[in-house]
Amino acid sequence: MPISQLVDQTIAAIGPLDTDAIAAATARQGMLTKPPGSLGRLETLSVQLAGILGQPIPQITGKAVIVAAGDHGVAAEGVSAYPAAVTPQMVFNFLAGGAAINVLARQAGADIVVIDAGVAVDLAPQPGLTIAKVGYGAGNIARGPAMTRDDAIRCLEVGITAANGRADAGANLIAGGDMGIGNTTPSAAVTAAVTGADVAAVTGRGTGVDDAALAAKIATIRRALEVNRPDGADGLDVLIKVGGYEIGALAGVMLGAAARRCAVIVDGFISGAAALIAWRLCPAVAERMIAAHRSVEPGHNVALRAMGLTPLLDLEMRLGEGTGAALAMPIIEAAARCLAEMATFAEAGVSDRDDG
Amino acid sequence: MPISQLVDQTIAAIGPLDTDAIAAATARQGMLTKPPGSLGRLETLSVQLAGILGQPIPQITGKAVIVAAGDHGVAAEGVSAYPAAVTPQMVFNFLAGGAAINVLARQAGADIVVIDAGVAVDLAPQPGLTIAKVGYGAGNIARGPAMTRDDAIRCLEVGITAANGRADAGANLIAGGDMGIGNTTPSAAVTAAVTGADVAAVTGRGTGVDDAALAAKIATIRRALEVNRPDGADGLDVLIKVGGYEIGALAGVMLGAAARRCAVIVDGFISGAAALIAWRLCPAVAERMIAAHRSVEPGHNVALRAMGLTPLLDLEMRLGEGTGAALAMPIIEAAARCLAEMATFAEAGVSDRDDG
Repeated sequence: MPISQLVDQTIAAIGPLDTDAIAAATARQGMLTKPPGSLGRLETLSVQLAGILGQPIPQITGKAVIVAAGDHGVAAEGVSAYPAAVTPQMVFNFLAGGAAINVLARQAGADIVVIDAGVAVDLAPQPGLTIAKVGYGAGNIARGPAMTRDDAIRCLEVGITAANGRADAGANLIAGGDMGIGNTTPSAAVTAAVTGADVAAVTGRGTGVDDAALAAKIATIRRALEVNRPDGADGLDVLIKVGGYEIGALAGVMLGAAARRCAVIVDGFISGAAALIAWRLCPAVAERMIAAHRSVEPGHNVALRAMGLTPLLDLEMRLGEGTGAALAMPIIEAAARCLAEMATFAEAGVSDRDDG
Repeated sequence: MPISQLVDQTIAAIGPLDTDAIAAATARQGMLTKPPGSLGRLETLSVQLAGILGQPIPQITGKAVIVAAGDHGVAAEGVSAYPAAVTPQMVFNFLAGGAAINVLARQAGADIVVIDAGVAVDLAPQPGLTIAKVGYGAGNIARGPAMTRDDAIRCLEVGITAANGRADAGANLIAGGDMGIGNTTPSAAVTAAVTGADVAAVTGRGTGVDDAALAAKIATIRRALEVNRPDGADGLDVLIKVGGYEIGALAGVMLGAAARRCAVIVDGFISGAAALIAWRLCPAVAERMIAAHRSVEPGHNVALRAMGLTPLLDLEMRLGEGTGAALAMPIIEAAARCLAEMATFAEAGVSDRDDG
């Protein structure tokens, strides 16, 4: 069933990786002045980037973090350690440059775009903020669906449009990031629905709830799945039933970035849930994803494993915002630069092992 | 027993971490706009940096990679997949900017210094190369000691002097890197001697030897330990008996950097062996070390665990040169910058959990 013209065209544009570029990058890795394989994942990353960007020697031309914010009706069930007012407060913190993602994006040399995809209050327009509010907070998934079908499509389109904007501005390494008090709850529901994992295995403490609140959170997520019965094979249905506005927007960012032949960096647990939705809508998108890190949230690794992704970093982080993704950017860039800038054995006059 | 004036003074200058700075940094982490602990190891790293640099809000003022090169008589036993001629060839590659460490140091914004601590041939003087040759390749440890006591002291002094040079130039984040065909063999011997681990548990394929050569390498290392009987509690004795010139220089770099209140980044297996020697000479140096990554070489993790260090990265690398250390630099810098640049809850007007 068609989704919408923009979403369908975007998905149709996500083709296979460039096998010629992959072969060329692989061959070049073997000629560089190092024992074969000794740069480990930097080597495989460089080859993946070649395939994604369609360049034998891939070049990162620009980096962007698209942070989507949204609220969640399910926060009323007491699933978070913080009040919902923190969502808009943190949006202003992003715009003022004081959040962790601002620092880490500066460190990585990445641009930041902030999208209001569904914060529960109106935000005043200001530079750096894209107001694309699909609704005033997603529905309470413990009692009904997160959103309508039209709203879910609109979320995806908001993300696709944002990714196109960054690609037009020259970025070819694009990360999503999230802000939304309560959003580990829908993310756990999405992860359980798509992967079939048990709710308890994909539910963590989020911003830091205690044991009793964790048990209640698990019960809330089980109820959300019973009430809504999402079809885990259908990404759109999962988004409608147990998703969230910022989660849908991030799924759209990933589809949009992949369609533009950008490498997609997957951040933490909420981004992982968004990635699962994007992956169900278009399995080929996973080849264009790079998992930045393994979150402390237990569901994150379940999501990454389902898509065949192995995280680059494991630094016990659980903040979201795109922080893990930004932290991985210099490593991804380093992988590309080693392939591009290292001398070959012949160029450097270094004896290869066969000469020994 | 005194070692030498420079070495003894250097070791004496390595005091405890600054507990006031640690307390201040810890308190500030709790005020920043994020759930407590959500930046994981970035938070603990920032606190460690505060203690090392003696600054409540630590600032990285400069980064350097000191690459020490040396040859090994034990290479004659066929322990490497590459000919010994590669050591000087790679030194020239470093100086020409074509090696992996050059690319990764550029990416990290770090300076590189290359030291000839004991390459088997004379190298022509050129910019960027410090000629501090202690000897023309260390002795074949399968048949006798690696070097004399005077040479071992000279190695340490070479490294201390290099670290002082970088500290004088403004660096406070200093990594060592190694080049030396055959040097995983003495590194395994050092690791076994200091940690007491079995030789087979600390010996890997180095640049890529096959099963038969690996078995022969293990036998060679066992022989080196039997012939030399190093005292694993005495770092200098270990260096004399089963070390290498570049390994000793790297141990000196670590002691010298720590004495100048710089953070010391430990690279891969060879740097790990050097760190063990430095640690036996001065246990307090370990608090000032940050383990960059976990090498594929199995002995590396044994060494790091002995010193209580947990690596930041695990990217299946095994190249040395300081490559893992350079790759970790942006993460270490990011940790410091988050502490310095993130807004507090009060500054940003964000509700803390107690307000909820």
